[in-house]
Amino acid sequence: MTGHIIWSRGLLRLLDQRLLPDRIEYVECRTPQEAAAAIRNMVVRGAPAIGVTAAYGVALAAFCAEGGSAGSRLAAVLSAGEELKRARPTAVNLAWAVERMVARAREAVDGGAGALADLLSGEAEAIHAEDIASCRAIGANGLPLMPEGGRVLTHCNAGALATGGYGTALGLVRAAREAGRIKMVYADETRPYLQGARLTAWELVEDEIPVTVLCDDMAASLMAKGRVDVVVVGADRIAANGDTANKIGTYGVAVLARHHRIPFLVAAPSSTFDLSIPSGKGIPIEERTPDEVAVIAGRRMVPRGAAVIHPAFDVTPASLITAIVTERGVISEVTDANVARVVGRSSR
Amino acid sequence: MTGHIIWSRGLLRLLDQRLLPDRIEYVECRTPQEAAAAIRNMVVRGAPAIGVTAAYGVALAAFCAEGGSAGSRLAAVLSAGEELKRARPTAVNLAWAVERMVARAREAVDGGAGALADLLSGEAEAIHAEDIASCRAIGANGLPLMPEGGRVLTHCNAGALATGGYGTALGLVRAAREAGRIKMVYADETRPYLQGARLTAWELVEDEIPVTVLCDDMAASLMAKGRVDVVVVGADRIAANGDTANKIGTYGVAVLARHHRIPFLVAAPSSTFDLSIPSGKGIPIEERTPDEVAVIAGRRMVPRGAAVIHPAFDVTPASLITAIVTERGVISEVTDANVARVVGRSSR
Repeated sequence: MTGHIIWSRGLLRLLDQRLLPDRIEYVECRTPQEAAAAIRNMVVRGAPAIGVTAAYGVALAAFCAEGGSAGSRLAAVLSAGEELKRARPTAVNLAWAVERMVARAREAVDGGAGALADLLSGEAEAIHAEDIASCRAIGANGLPLMPEGGRVLTHCNAGALATGGYGTALGLVRAAREAGRIKMVYADETRPYLQGARLTAWELVEDEIPVTVLCDDMAASLMAKGRVDVVVVGADRIAANGDTANKIGTYGVAVLARHHRIPFLVAAPSSTFDLSIPSGKGIPIEERTPDEVAVIAGRRMVPRGAAVIHPAFDVTPASLITAIVTERGVISEVTDANVARVVGRSSR
Repeated sequence: MTGHIIWSRGLLRLLDQRLLPDRIEYVECRTPQEAAAAIRNMVVRGAPAIGVTAAYGVALAAFCAEGGSAGSRLAAVLSAGEELKRARPTAVNLAWAVERMVARAREAVDGGAGALADLLSGEAEAIHAEDIASCRAIGANGLPLMPEGGRVLTHCNAGALATGGYGTALGLVRAAREAGRIKMVYADETRPYLQGARLTAWELVEDEIPVTVLCDDMAASLMAKGRVDVVVVGADRIAANGDTANKIGTYGVAVLARHHRIPFLVAAPSSTFDLSIPSGKGIPIEERTPDEVAVIAGRRMVPRGAAVIHPAFDVTPASLITAIVTERGVISEVTDANVARVVGRSSR
């Protein structure tokens, strides 16, 4: 598939993922506010993709503030960074990318306005390129864990659309496909947003990788029939002990995989780890509006008078995770010590 | 709630469950073919409700054949019975009700035409009334298993709408509610047909029982948070060893319940048992059209080029079932011997 986050100095174009697979339309952002709204409203989603988008959003602040004083430019960048960080609470890549951009801006505060915009533009492009490189490294590192003739189940979309490109969980799938090891990808449709049905299926069809969509409540019987060899998912935030927040439903799939003795792999770049949080208990879980559950394609499916819950994420305990695949290596027994060993050093 | 299967000699009115909760409309059936189509197209669904509908469908054949010879009337009834049995393959109550009606018709074959129609009308009404009485008995029998202040999770709709009235799983809920024991009913929305969101929520709101709808992939995290005390579901066919076919997704909920040490109850009348089948392996599982998964409220959610599966049921092994509650008593350790002891004797 072609790019879904497209940058040209001062203009950010985002493929509107809400309209897939029906329509291919781009949302244009010229201000950090527009970028924050695109994240909040899920024009773009997926932890690494949100990070890349937020980086460009910070850069947009520098472009918008051209002509002001050095101090006002830095203030604009800091303010944009705060707004972008608030756009969604669970994915840590968002804060990570914003902080890296802000740190770069602080270093450069004495430069001219054009210089700041250029610098932040380059930094965001570097974050974007590094993210794609990370995905490819995740694919290479995880390949030994992918079985021959593999039938892979995934939940939500941790694909090219969820990252700068190539994907984390689907990066692993793509690497395995390039190695001739993929027989079928089973995509949970992933209610309520249907990222699996709409996005994972779309990008795999685009890449001619065989994909079968199922309702989330069909995964268990598929496993019972012996039709799933491995589960691969992405992550939105991983605590120091390996507990992993990811799209709602991931935890249930992990319980099912354990019951059926199927390996359960998490694929994520090191920027998804939040080592300041000891365990999953400390990860904030976004509650979104009930209407995103109750109304589908414009039709209200839940009667008035019934309550509706909509947690957007859940936490899978490290004990249910066979391995976490990162661009720096594989955490194959998920413990605090192994997490620290693989991703604990600061490299960037 | 008021009746959803309404009979007056020669006319069967069925609440169109496909339109709930938006619209209250009835489909009128004057021929067994129309009744079979209503079952096939899911105007009415739920194993006991299908049985009751099919019974009236057989009676309709007698009304349609009035004026013919005794032989032609019986032939019409037999032919209608065969067509009705083919309407859906998994629920055994359908075959059970048709066979009871056909046996009654054979006994009465020498009576006059009006007599046959009257007789079958009465027999169908008896099946309907017995089904409601069964549901109330299920509620009474299962009440001791329902905890005080109970927070109950259910999947699909095994309620008044799925039966002649009152419900099996929701019959247990109603009995517990009458005893002051229900704090909350959590209704899995139950993709792809959303029977939980549309039907379970609707009938519980009608009865002023507190209900919260969730996507199927949210049940696991709800359990992990300790917010579910007991799971109660219905059944479409139960084998001699207690293996239970029910709406797709039920098996996954049973695995999750076991993982979280939550009791998992099946509520079903004895007519749901098929003692001719030794285990769940022998239960035929209906595969429905992929479009029922891929298209929601008229919008295609899955891109062309992706495969879609749509098994309508799955099988929960007896080992994951805490108890099966029937109108004849509770099977509280689910084994072949206990199934035979409680429902093995033929009573009607």
